[in-house]
Amino acid sequence: MTSNMEPETNIYERRESDARSYCRAFPATFTTARGSEIFTQDGGRYIDFLAGCSSLNYGHNDPDMKAALIDHISADGIAHALDFHTDAKEAFLKAYEDKILKPRGLDYKVMMTGPTGTNAVEAAIKLARKVTERRNVIAFTNAFHGMTMGALALTGNAGKRGGAGGGSLADVTHMPFEGAMGDDVDTLQFIEAMLDNPSSGIDAPAAFIFEPIQGEGGLNAASNEWMRGIERIARKHDALLIIDDIQAGCGRSGSFFSWEAAGIKPDMVTQAKSLSGYGLPFAALLIRPELDVWKPAEHNGTFRGNTHAFVTARVAIEKFWSDDSFAKSVQDKAELLTENFQQIAGMIDGAKLKGRGMMQGIDVGSGELASEICARAYDKGLIIETSGAEDEVVKFLGALTTPEELIREGFGILRDATREALAERKSTSIAAE
Amino acid sequence: MTSNMEPETNIYERRESDARSYCRAFPATFTTARGSEIFTQDGGRYIDFLAGCSSLNYGHNDPDMKAALIDHISADGIAHALDFHTDAKEAFLKAYEDKILKPRGLDYKVMMTGPTGTNAVEAAIKLARKVTERRNVIAFTNAFHGMTMGALALTGNAGKRGGAGGGSLADVTHMPFEGAMGDDVDTLQFIEAMLDNPSSGIDAPAAFIFEPIQGEGGLNAASNEWMRGIERIARKHDALLIIDDIQAGCGRSGSFFSWEAAGIKPDMVTQAKSLSGYGLPFAALLIRPELDVWKPAEHNGTFRGNTHAFVTARVAIEKFWSDDSFAKSVQDKAELLTENFQQIAGMIDGAKLKGRGMMQGIDVGSGELASEICARAYDKGLIIETSGAEDEVVKFLGALTTPEELIREGFGILRDATREALAERKSTSIAAE
Amino acid sequence: MTSNMEPETNIYERRESDARSYCRAFPATFTTARGSEIFTQDGGRYIDFLAGCSSLNYGHNDPDMKAALIDHISADGIAHALDFHTDAKEAFLKAYEDKILKPRGLDYKVMMTGPTGTNAVEAAIKLARKVTERRNVIAFTNAFHGMTMGALALTGNAGKRGGAGGGSLADVTHMPFEGAMGDDVDTLQFIEAMLDNPSSGIDAPAAFIFEPIQGEGGLNAASNEWMRGIERIARKHDALLIIDDIQAGCGRSGSFFSWEAAGIKPDMVTQAKSLSGYGLPFAALLIRPELDVWKPAEHNGTFRGNTHAFVTARVAIEKFWSDDSFAKSVQDKAELLTENFQQIAGMIDGAKLKGRGMMQGIDVGSGELASEICARAYDKGLIIETSGAEDEVVKFLGALTTPEELIREGFGILRDATREALAERKSTSIAAE
Amino acid sequence: MTSNMEPETNIYERRESDARSYCRAFPATFTTARGSEIFTQDGGRYIDFLAGCSSLNYGHNDPDMKAALIDHISADGIAHALDFHTDAKEAFLKAYEDKILKPRGLDYKVMMTGPTGTNAVEAAIKLARKVTERRNVIAFTNAFHGMTMGALALTGNAGKRGGAGGGSLADVTHMPFEGAMGDDVDTLQFIEAMLDNPSSGIDAPAAFIFEPIQGEGGLNAASNEWMRGIERIARKHDALLIIDDIQAGCGRSGSFFSWEAAGIKPDMVTQAKSLSGYGLPFAALLIRPELDVWKPAEHNGTFRGNTHAFVTARVAIEKFWSDDSFAKSVQDKAELLTENFQQIAGMIDGAKLKGRGMMQGIDVGSGELASEICARAYDKGLIIETSGAEDEVVKFLGALTTPEELIREGFGILRDATREALAERKSTSIAAE
Repeated sequence: MTSNMEPETNIYERRESDARSYCRAFPATFTTARGSEIFTQDGGRYIDFLAGCSSLNYGHNDPDMKAALIDHISADGIAHALDFHTDAKEAFLKAYEDKILKPRGLDYKVMMTGPTGTNAVEAAIKLARKVTERRNVIAFTNAFHGMTMGALALTGNAGKRGGAGGGSLADVTHMPFEGAMGDDVDTLQFIEAMLDNPSSGIDAPAAFIFEPIQGEGGLNAASNEWMRGIERIARKHDALLIIDDIQAGCGRSGSFFSWEAAGIKPDMVTQAKSLSGYGLPFAALLIRPELDVWKPAEHNGTFRGNTHAFVTARVAIEKFWSDDSFAKSVQDKAELLTENFQQIAGMIDGAKLKGRGMMQGIDVGSGELASEICARAYDKGLIIETSGAEDEVVKFLGALTTPEELIREGFGILRDATREALAERKSTSIAAE
Repeated sequence: MTSNMEPETNIYERRESDARSYCRAFPATFTTARGSEIFTQDGGRYIDFLAGCSSLNYGHNDPDMKAALIDHISADGIAHALDFHTDAKEAFLKAYEDKILKPRGLDYKVMMTGPTGTNAVEAAIKLARKVTERRNVIAFTNAFHGMTMGALALTGNAGKRGGAGGGSLADVTHMPFEGAMGDDVDTLQFIEAMLDNPSSGIDAPAAFIFEPIQGEGGLNAASNEWMRGIERIARKHDALLIIDDIQAGCGRSGSFFSWEAAGIKPDMVTQAKSLSGYGLPFAALLIRPELDVWKPAEHNGTFRGNTHAFVTARVAIEKFWSDDSFAKSVQDKAELLTENFQQIAGMIDGAKLKGRGMMQGIDVGSGELASEICARAYDKGLIIETSGAEDEVVKFLGALTTPEELIREGFGILRDATREALAERKSTSIAAE
Repeated sequence: MTSNMEPETNIYERRESDARSYCRAFPATFTTARGSEIFTQDGGRYIDFLAGCSSLNYGHNDPDMKAALIDHISADGIAHALDFHTDAKEAFLKAYEDKILKPRGLDYKVMMTGPTGTNAVEAAIKLARKVTERRNVIAFTNAFHGMTMGALALTGNAGKRGGAGGGSLADVTHMPFEGAMGDDVDTLQFIEAMLDNPSSGIDAPAAFIFEPIQGEGGLNAASNEWMRGIERIARKHDALLIIDDIQAGCGRSGSFFSWEAAGIKPDMVTQAKSLSGYGLPFAALLIRPELDVWKPAEHNGTFRGNTHAFVTARVAIEKFWSDDSFAKSVQDKAELLTENFQQIAGMIDGAKLKGRGMMQGIDVGSGELASEICARAYDKGLIIETSGAEDEVVKFLGALTTPEELIREGFGILRDATREALAERKSTSIAAE
Repeated sequence: MTSNMEPETNIYERRESDARSYCRAFPATFTTARGSEIFTQDGGRYIDFLAGCSSLNYGHNDPDMKAALIDHISADGIAHALDFHTDAKEAFLKAYEDKILKPRGLDYKVMMTGPTGTNAVEAAIKLARKVTERRNVIAFTNAFHGMTMGALALTGNAGKRGGAGGGSLADVTHMPFEGAMGDDVDTLQFIEAMLDNPSSGIDAPAAFIFEPIQGEGGLNAASNEWMRGIERIARKHDALLIIDDIQAGCGRSGSFFSWEAAGIKPDMVTQAKSLSGYGLPFAALLIRPELDVWKPAEHNGTFRGNTHAFVTARVAIEKFWSDDSFAKSVQDKAELLTENFQQIAGMIDGAKLKGRGMMQGIDVGSGELASEICARAYDKGLIIETSGAEDEVVKFLGALTTPEELIREGFGILRDATREALAERKSTSIAAE
């Protein structure tokens, strides 16, 4: 292995794997951030409608979490202690019990899996198979559950699946999510018919897993009826119900959990992304106590207790979830988002609004147009990304704490970007005639 | 789901999954830590010979990393920005290039996988399969590579594998590690004979993956000859060589990488645990540039850039790896460890020293005795853990920065604990007669 | 292993595996058979509406095949010679070319797989995966393709699948057959939507495989439109089209191949059951010449040339397929079957006619009733069996050569049996009130 | 699909799949055969040392079986009746019980699987997994168990495995057969060490399956000690012991079962090839009664009762296995084979004798030389084939009934062929200098 280090090359091209992605669309070097604004080394300012893909629901560097974290570090608070008992963990668990579980009448054990969403998903499906002694897990079209082999098997996207390089993505049956067969087809009916038929070839499922709002898959939001339907079918077939609330949870939908309004009782719930509140790696799996049959360390991981995350997560819970005012403000802003997306929809033939809560977007009909809009928005100081099987959806994932003015400012940019992208398209197509 | 919250219960019993483990052996509530000492809420002090299972090679809360981290946070430095370019990432990559890669004549791309070891392993095997268009990966007896399905398939431990609940752990062939057939059997010969036979039924391998020193598997240290042998067999069969350096890397073995002395050229290297220096979640996969065929986001993850970890990792590299003095001090302390373990070996019939560098331990012949020793050590103020298929090895994984006095103090405790455990054993066995 | 041989026990109970099945419903000891009549040791006579599950389309012991076979054996003709060239094989291949392929404008290579249907299916899916370099095969609800692991993975029935004892039934996606979602749902639309969505999680298929009339699955007959639809979807996704014509082929549907009327061009076709004409084990896989990429012996088998079967198969082809008179007589008798089943349908509320050609039956609504009818028919001298996921279909699979009088006689018995079974039911349900 | 039928082409090239193999080495068209001689259309005569790969242990067209078969057919005896009770089946089962099981003190249920060896193997591993509720099956280097997916997963040969086209060959661990690591390495020790280590990564096995003499794998004959060793390890790990006696059984080794002398008690035994005696498709799985947990039809198959085979198999058992004279004659002829192979070994540097009983051969060191020898033998009127991972073994598989004179005549040809092949080699290598 001879050295090919050329100091002139960009350090990222020289040293970072080609797997890197967001930095290609947003190539500036960022240094600081506050709330919904992010700043570059050379003084540039961007409005952030991406928010770490829903990992920064409370904005960048929330001052209260920041203060608590600095206090903790300054006092030589524990940074890493595997899954030891620590004051930070205890305070987090108590806050989670008091502010999240109790008010919602929920009774879950909290499993500290490795601090990534995919790890929580892997733990969930492993446990579901252990408990039920069945192997098959039902996942859905356009689902995204992670990139490790167990979670990737659940994931729908062909490009992502191709990353497995032919390794077995086994023990999963993919079923159509709500709306996947067109608006007029009831996918519950299909799913139920297939599972009720003892000769369908679909093995009895250990579990169903779905995202109430599919983040990567194009902001497909399941209705309450559909969620209840899946729960009913799962119960009927003695299968567990796992909700992947990694992207849609932590308030994004307008309530702490995205499935609260459906009145369902999932057996397990995965959480990650905004759980730490500050963007620190942290994930957890909620488990109905009767199902918590893990033996000690049967699923473990070095970073399963990220103590810094416990500190900020506790502050986040206490600050935003001690009463329902934050949830209400999210619901209000969700309406503002809808209005703004409707304006854009008015500009594009056939555009369709997607998602709900502060997880909304617009299907502009093609990945090319969506990318063009986002690229032009970036040039004007707005960070916003696409989503969907063909990247055809422009999606808002900005912080839930984004002030209304900033939302309006961001959408102003988005409208300009859309207008330009459409004009460019038109001139290109005229030129082509 | 009715609530069963009883405030009297311990919050951990009430709310944390039964998967928790270390806190059962070390049940105190810890609050602060410095270097190799860790302190409880009520003033207790423990010497830490576990160091986050090799995640704290530079000790708890290193003052320079701490200062840099507080500065970063105070200045509203980016905490989370997916895989955007940031000043913190750039500085880390440059330090890694200058202090780690260049001096060793190594040329690797750095892939920021999800911030856990298991994720780096999953990325490695996915890439190996993509590149070679083969599925089979050769892993070894007593290997531990992680708990997500792809990494778990590589892992040897039956208990851990059982956690998959019958999910397919496919596409892996398990071969005997050095010494696994007894000291006098050359496992290379076996491996080569099986692979050379076109009718062995073992499909052509995409890759070999091994840990130079098996951390969880009982501190089995591969010789340089064996490592070169595996490299040779891998090359002969057009398979890639992946080194899992998650636990043995970052100086633990006496050099930054645990395989440096063998003179091998792995195609990929996984790093995690002590990579951040401060115990923060962080993992990376080193990839020979020719093999970096990832498409953008083909393997991604929300926390693949943990910016806080970039800050502390850079300080760790600059502070400890700018010259070879730190490595030398580790080598010196390794000898001190050997001396101390030899003393204990003198107390136990048939005890065997295991490991190398500052990753040493003693096989005391039974898991029961090893656990008894560790339990008594804990009572006396020392945190030390077991390892091995039957938990039969008492292992030192203390910080590489542990002062010699503290090492001596710790071993004093360990000797006392051993003496007591053996006396107890004897009296129990006499009573039983 | 101590001996438990008790001479008093029935030899079957004592020595034959509990896997035996038909002999439980039809427990007589049979010794001779001619055409559509089968005779017991003690002089009993049964009309055979089962015909070896469509393995005896030309009846038992056809005199011309019998004579040719006796001649061959008497002359010390080859009985077994692996896949050597023999006069018998040559004559069979020429007859197959002249009478089957040429008149239909078909160009296929004939692969002599092991002499069982499941072996032909295994060969087909292996070849499809080899050719396309894809793993996933699309199979259908209620499909039956065989009991070896590759074919069993394609099979729908949960009980049959359970026989795998947890072994992996991988690399298959099960889709709804025509009508599986109810009469008003177009399953093609569902299948196409799932495959067209690049984020469905369903990997690009190597092939589609289906039975034009599902024999074991309940006599579900695909329409020509549906077959053409599957062909179109397969072509669109560069997948191969495999027809399993094992049970419905060899004239059963009214033409030699059951898919002729659909105007499709399958890439591969499996044949077995009645292929030998005389009930001898024989199977073949038809392969489009361009796809015949097998290396010599890449799929082999000891009995891949059953020479006795070549002899009888040749006679069968020459006798029944030299012109279209036999096919026409089958079509005529098919109408007679329909009339007769309609009479029975008139006796049972909600009964539904199933199948087509001389592969017809009646869904009587419950497996219990169907079994009761068949049991009573057997007592009266008629052998007829059930089919379907719940064994709810009484199915006719008698020889295509069955004289009309015998068909009428058999249906007379069946009507009586049905009447009695219904009366018994009624009296039982009245008694229960 | 346009027609490309060219009448000038050979019918085999035109119409038979390229998977055909033996007919390439032995391209004559054969028509009749008696005992160990086989005759071509144009009067050619060959001595048959292949005997249908051990499917014709009693020679071609044994006169007693022939007479019984003609009688059966002439009398319109049942040819095909699924798994109905028939006089032919009853007589076979009784003969098998009386002549095979009872005298050996064996107690097995007989399962009529599909009439091919691979089907019996598939049934065995399915049942083993059902009974043990484990998935992993231990198979061995150079094993050949069949070509359907379940059996192929057990098979060692890379070329054969490649036929699966990337389909999953899962749930199998391949271990070294006796001698596979060289003559001085005890593979039992290796196998035991791997299985005893709970961290080996090898999942608890449902069963071990092996051939006492590996037919396709190069005539590797397991010693009695090794067979007992595998039985012991299987028992220790609560795994079943399955013997694949398809090629080595039915007297080939010098006793009816090839494992009798080892004194082991297999849980299941597969039989096929010579079981019918006449070369007709027939296979069976012997099952210890306690393990016969099959539900009716849980493993079925259209041709699971090949009645013609019952007839000839009964005659074969009565004629050859009513006393031990036949077995003794096989043992005598085995010595004659050894002498003859030793003579040939004397002609070739480094040649090694392989196998035992009348399943012997000679490893001539290269597949090229072995093929050259066989090709020249064929030109001189002897049919003999190669075996082994590299086809390096010239193997005798002639009928057990071959008269000594014919054996001597055949070996005379083989010696001449060897001499010529060696001379040709020498002249080629001199010319090359």
